[in-house]
Amino acid sequence: MPSRDKAPRTHRLPQAQKPRGLVMVNTGDGKGKSTAAFGTALRALGQGRSVAVVQFIKGKWKTGEEKAARFFGKKFQFHAFGEGFTWQTKDFEKDTALARRGWKKAAGFIRDKKHSLVILDEINCCFLYNFLDVRVVLRELKKRPVTKHVFLTGRGAPAALMRYADLVTEMKNIKHPYDKGFIAQAGIDF
Amino acid sequence: MPSRDKAPRTHRLPQAQKPRGLVMVNTGDGKGKSTAAFGTALRALGQGRSVAVVQFIKGKWKTGEEKAARFFGKKFQFHAFGEGFTWQTKDFEKDTALARRGWKKAAGFIRDKKHSLVILDEINCCFLYNFLDVRVVLRELKKRPVTKHVFLTGRGAPAALMRYADLVTEMKNIKHPYDKGFIAQAGIDF
Repeated sequence: MPSRDKAPRTHRLPQAQKPRGLVMVNTGDGKGKSTAAFGTALRALGQGRSVAVVQFIKGKWKTGEEKAARFFGKKFQFHAFGEGFTWQTKDFEKDTALARRGWKKAAGFIRDKKHSLVILDEINCCFLYNFLDVRVVLRELKKRPVTKHVFLTGRGAPAALMRYADLVTEMKNIKHPYDKGFIAQAGIDF
Repeated sequence: MPSRDKAPRTHRLPQAQKPRGLVMVNTGDGKGKSTAAFGTALRALGQGRSVAVVQFIKGKWKTGEEKAARFFGKKFQFHAFGEGFTWQTKDFEKDTALARRGWKKAAGFIRDKKHSLVILDEINCCFLYNFLDVRVVLRELKKRPVTKHVFLTGRGAPAALMRYADLVTEMKNIKHPYDKGFIAQAGIDF
């Protein structure tokens, strides 16, 4: 019976049957890391939960996700940092300060009792570039409210984060339209 | 500069610069195949596009996605088939008839000028079980309106489909909470 929830179910422990917040990681070079996290947001919103998104890398455009957020009103908090990241000019101090501002906002959402799901979109890049220390983030995750779900996305997820996480999925690029020369398109890529 | 759209951009051809519908496939044993497709739906809806979803495998519960659909009104068409699939009882005739009904609905969405994105959720399972012939689906995809995007999900995508697709991503399970005995949870798993 093929089905999307056909994961191994051995070792199911009685004490694990209560709802419990999960730490989820989407990493790898393929598409769908952020998109699957946003899909999870849609699912949670559909179930009446509140969702907070902190975006650590921001593109040049207003994304469809951000626009869609309006439909859900206050249940969907969306905060974009990274507008001013200087990846290319390599102003390490400025980028670190910006990442830390994003993280401060994120930590508030992780601590509160209001949001059932917190998405730290592209935060893994901040670890990769040493703008954020994964140990600081892990400390916060470990003391979060028991039912709080946290989704961290971006390529190059640190090993320490993957060890702690409950769910880790690698999105592998098998074939990408940019390889064929197609441009990014509204409604699909952003 | 790490970023979610950091895919190779060599061989960008001038004739490929116009918006053009993509055929996208999410396959593999990991989580996020359907969820990323639904995230893409959210993105498209946020950009004001119309989206149709035909779900070929249905779980026991009303999914968050389906509930979220209500927020977007008529812009989001959602049709679930597969409620009556007899994977276990192996009534091949019944399952084939049901898959074909789903496909008939899907083909209408692929042909119309209204929906910019059509998601065929878990359709790959129907190929795997010979409920649908991938050649029939490919024929329809090849004659679709030029800007129509079609997203096909499910493990075991057939090779012929992957050859034709513009984007193929494999979701690889690195670590899954069911391994630890955690139950499926509302707002995350459904």
